[in-house]
Amino acid sequence: MSQPETKPFDYLIHNVNVASMATHGDYGIIENACLGVKSGVIEFIGTQEQLTAPNELESNAETVINAHNQWLTPGLIDCHTHLVYGGNRANEFEMRLNGASYEDIAKAGGGILSSVSATRAATEQQLFETASKRLKSLLKEGLTTIEIKSGYGLDTETEIKMLKVARRLGKEFPVRVSTTFLGAHALPPEYKDRADDYIDLVRNEMLPTIAELELADAVDAFCENIGFSYQQTQKVFETAKQLGLPVKLHAEQLSDQSGAGLAADFGALSADHLEYLSHESIDKMAQSGTVAVLLPGAFYFLRETKLPPIQALRDKQVPMAIATDSNPGTSPAESLLLMLNMACTLFRMTPLESLQGVTVNAAKALGLSKEIGTLEVGKKADMVLWDIDHPNQLSYQLGGSNWTRTFKG
Amino acid sequence: MSQPETKPFDYLIHNVNVASMATHGDYGIIENACLGVKSGVIEFIGTQEQLTAPNELESNAETVINAHNQWLTPGLIDCHTHLVYGGNRANEFEMRLNGASYEDIAKAGGGILSSVSATRAATEQQLFETASKRLKSLLKEGLTTIEIKSGYGLDTETEIKMLKVARRLGKEFPVRVSTTFLGAHALPPEYKDRADDYIDLVRNEMLPTIAELELADAVDAFCENIGFSYQQTQKVFETAKQLGLPVKLHAEQLSDQSGAGLAADFGALSADHLEYLSHESIDKMAQSGTVAVLLPGAFYFLRETKLPPIQALRDKQVPMAIATDSNPGTSPAESLLLMLNMACTLFRMTPLESLQGVTVNAAKALGLSKEIGTLEVGKKADMVLWDIDHPNQLSYQLGGSNWTRTFKG
Ligand SMILES: [Zn+2]
Ligand SMILES: [Zn+2]
Repeated sequence: MSQPETKPFDYLIHNVNVASMATHGDYGIIENACLGVKSGVIEFIGTQEQLTAPNELESNAETVINAHNQWLTPGLIDCHTHLVYGGNRANEFEMRLNGASYEDIAKAGGGILSSVSATRAATEQQLFETASKRLKSLLKEGLTTIEIKSGYGLDTETEIKMLKVARRLGKEFPVRVSTTFLGAHALPPEYKDRADDYIDLVRNEMLPTIAELELADAVDAFCENIGFSYQQTQKVFETAKQLGLPVKLHAEQLSDQSGAGLAADFGALSADHLEYLSHESIDKMAQSGTVAVLLPGAFYFLRETKLPPIQALRDKQVPMAIATDSNPGTSPAESLLLMLNMACTLFRMTPLESLQGVTVNAAKALGLSKEIGTLEVGKKADMVLWDIDHPNQLSYQLGGSNWTRTFKG
Repeated sequence: MSQPETKPFDYLIHNVNVASMATHGDYGIIENACLGVKSGVIEFIGTQEQLTAPNELESNAETVINAHNQWLTPGLIDCHTHLVYGGNRANEFEMRLNGASYEDIAKAGGGILSSVSATRAATEQQLFETASKRLKSLLKEGLTTIEIKSGYGLDTETEIKMLKVARRLGKEFPVRVSTTFLGAHALPPEYKDRADDYIDLVRNEMLPTIAELELADAVDAFCENIGFSYQQTQKVFETAKQLGLPVKLHAEQLSDQSGAGLAADFGALSADHLEYLSHESIDKMAQSGTVAVLLPGAFYFLRETKLPPIQALRDKQVPMAIATDSNPGTSPAESLLLMLNMACTLFRMTPLESLQGVTVNAAKALGLSKEIGTLEVGKKADMVLWDIDHPNQLSYQLGGSNWTRTFKG
């Protein structure tokens, strides 16, 4: 028997327009390109002439895919979500629109603590199933990587349950899941008026246990006047650092707590929200390479009016990412493409910045720049094919999707 | 040979929660219901016990569908779209976000006239294919009826071409298409500074030809300081009336032109946009039964700040509908569900009003109340099954879709 011939590529995509997102200041467009993948890694990008004669494509790859002039971008990355939770808050949404006050809603059991109760009450299987539905919506739009936070458990057992569900989503769906422990998301009812004691629980019990179980890729907190203080956040970060876990922060959403600056001091991967971000914190972020993760869905849903300082972030070359913040209370979002439009329409980001925000800069926000986020030789073949005329159309469209197919490795 | 037994229903759906939208002031909820269809018409809605014993469902219908406790609503109706057009305006969108002025964009060939050029240049087949893509996005969210306007031709030939494409969409997709002639949408370049002459063309050539060809179910105009005047609109309406065609109007979007009042004087089906609607016009609309069609996508995309007078419309019991206004310049929207969320979030409509706005009131806006818009005995079986806990979830969700399947008759 003769040795089977090994072809250089597992698959080749030709007749394709590539937006590599690998160059600074533009989409990195290669028209009428050809892209070859071997063992889930991009091994060639260029024009077809650079590779081989047109009639010899077949001899170079097991599978040859004619993209019929469609567009290929890096797989989309949603770098800030709370995808796993029990229940939903549609009733609360309806009550508020029917004129109920926050007090009425609290009395009716609404607010974040209703999500905590529902998440504690749900089984791991129930959480998996409801999160799966939301994940499927996102996957239909070219998602290949998603960050998922805990933070609706607020006790060790439920925080672990949430993170296990997040890990399982990554095993059962064609998506890479990056998990984040967000024990310091809100104060659980049993710790009312004892925030420091709760932070001790986070530091002394939750964090070591979750680190031991290797359930978290990063550690997050909510630093806000209705969340945790600068000092409490700092303590959580210190423990995370001792455990060797990178940090990120919900910062400056409703007021300036200097949280983003604190995060930068700890070399944080990202500081997120940032409507009230100060110039001091921007400088610190620029120095530490911390990504600014902007969340236009929450801005929209909460009808905020204070815009994040986009121009100042541009001026200091702080990388900007965009995410859904998918969560039941302030952004029940299941579309990352919609966030591109909202970043443009509400935040006046450009279509290029928006697309960078869910590819190259979102990868950076997850510490995964070496593997994903751009189409370059050596990167993972996480890619999306779109039936569009130009990548700016991904930001222009308002709902709907021109998604054709996703390649995951 | 024995006569085949005729069963009372073609299909029965059981284990279903119905939101009939047929009652005033609520969703018309029937939990654990059973619904029977014969020849595309709803023949029974009630509890299963009212119909037959549980083990005798099969003997009542050719097909029995177990909905597993999901929710059934009327098929969604998008009562205001410009779905058929050539090109798109993503480049213009990108230019503006990169700081280009309106003058720069006009010089680069942007604005509505770029859509007119592209629509004139496109073949009927090209227009059909690009509109098909957009229609498919809408159909994936439970759309069963759509209104489609002409208005990017602005010459007789191209207006006819657009309306033919709209009719063909209704033949080739499982959707009912209601067509609207919108010749008085903008002034074509060849009539620059001769608006009255163009209105004569609309009245003397376009309208009679299109009526003769039976290509339009209604007639629309854009009454605005950047569109056509009150008097010009009145003339178009007079011709429409002579031809026996119902009218509707783009009114009070950017300023108060008393257009909605004029429309009501002509017994218009609807007046649409309405941000600058006056109390006088509201009173006239209430008297004539003219529907207020609200377009939150355009409001959002144009970053308008003047809200339509929702509370005054409520007080005078003017029926409110919601639509995508799907168009390349001011609302490149391909999701009607997203419009429900925007109606709630931006216009502070309730989830009930939003759902009424794409069912019962949208049917009224198209003059189709007798046939569609609610789930009632005698109405067409245009229905959508959703994997949700309550119909308020359709307004709460931000992107994504819990659509399970659509029944079209
Ligand atoms: Zn968040
Ligand atoms: Zn319109």
